[in-house]
Amino acid sequence: MTKVSVVELGEAKTSSSSRRGVNRGLAILDFVLRLIGIVGTLASAIAMGTTNETLPFFTRFVRFRAQYDDLPTFTFFVVANSVVSGYLILSLALSIFHIVRSSAQKSRILLIIFDTAMLGLLTAGASASAAIVYLAHTGNTSANWFAICQQFNSFCERISGSLIGSFVGIAVFILIIFLSAVALTRRN
Amino acid sequence: MTKVSVVELGEAKTSSSSRRGVNRGLAILDFVLRLIGIVGTLASAIAMGTTNETLPFFTRFVRFRAQYDDLPTFTFFVVANSVVSGYLILSLALSIFHIVRSSAQKSRILLIIFDTAMLGLLTAGASASAAIVYLAHTGNTSANWFAICQQFNSFCERISGSLIGSFVGIAVFILIIFLSAVALTRRN
Repeated sequence: MTKVSVVELGEAKTSSSSRRGVNRGLAILDFVLRLIGIVGTLASAIAMGTTNETLPFFTRFVRFRAQYDDLPTFTFFVVANSVVSGYLILSLALSIFHIVRSSAQKSRILLIIFDTAMLGLLTAGASASAAIVYLAHTGNTSANWFAICQQFNSFCERISGSLIGSFVGIAVFILIIFLSAVALTRRN
Repeated sequence: MTKVSVVELGEAKTSSSSRRGVNRGLAILDFVLRLIGIVGTLASAIAMGTTNETLPFFTRFVRFRAQYDDLPTFTFFVVANSVVSGYLILSLALSIFHIVRSSAQKSRILLIIFDTAMLGLLTAGASASAAIVYLAHTGNTSANWFAICQQFNSFCERISGSLIGSFVGIAVFILIIFLSAVALTRRN
């Protein structure tokens, strides 16, 4: 009977360590994804925050200079991306902790809550900016809003491009939340 | 020795059933939250989708009639809210399944993934619309976009109000994801 218990114990150990290996792999993937997210959101914030264009001419309707903070939505975009990238940098510490201690559960729940909130913030900033960028490109005849991109070409290209990093960040967050949920179900 | 095992078995059973009780409570809460989400997003979609205003007068600059689909962002808002409320109605089936079988894990992961994606969709629609509504209220002098709300009063009130249900939906989704994460950690 003692022999049987030992064999069972041995099997249980192997199974547990292989699960721990998978969890560690998930934690490392989580870490890499967070790094990608930091690069994306930080690049977005910087690209948008440094956008301005001075025109060599002026007409009755357009201003000499276009800056990102002429439109309050873009200010929100910069703030949201900065906050999220700051959060991601801080969360790297917990991510490393999960690589070392892959059976941690409570800290994973904490991360899921914050990740979800940050996903919301980032999505809000990115999509609000996308709506305004779309308006800047096409204008709206019903509301008599003119397409300002005809005058401010490079300004519009810059603000459109700076959205990319933010949307990469959104994809990263959805993946991170999914990975955390999978890691939570694995029992060590 | 037999007595001791029986006692231990008894304790394990009690502990397991109390955990199952908490999980069932979480599942019921999840169900109620989904109902609130359905009401919120459906109300938003309907309120926005039926918005139009015909002015009794006209000037050179404003049109006779303002409809929600004059602005493509609002069309996206209606679509996003309809999709999310449709998803929530379908997800009620899985939510009921979780009340009955509170130890289910894989279906919970499935729900977390879809919930996160739907949170993204809903946030995108709501915040893009919020950006446009803000623009309609205040206009933007830099881009020479006029505040159309001075003419279309009741139109603007309606589109502003219809955002509320959507933001309630966002809060509901964040809570649902949090509850699912908590339920996943509990081992039955």
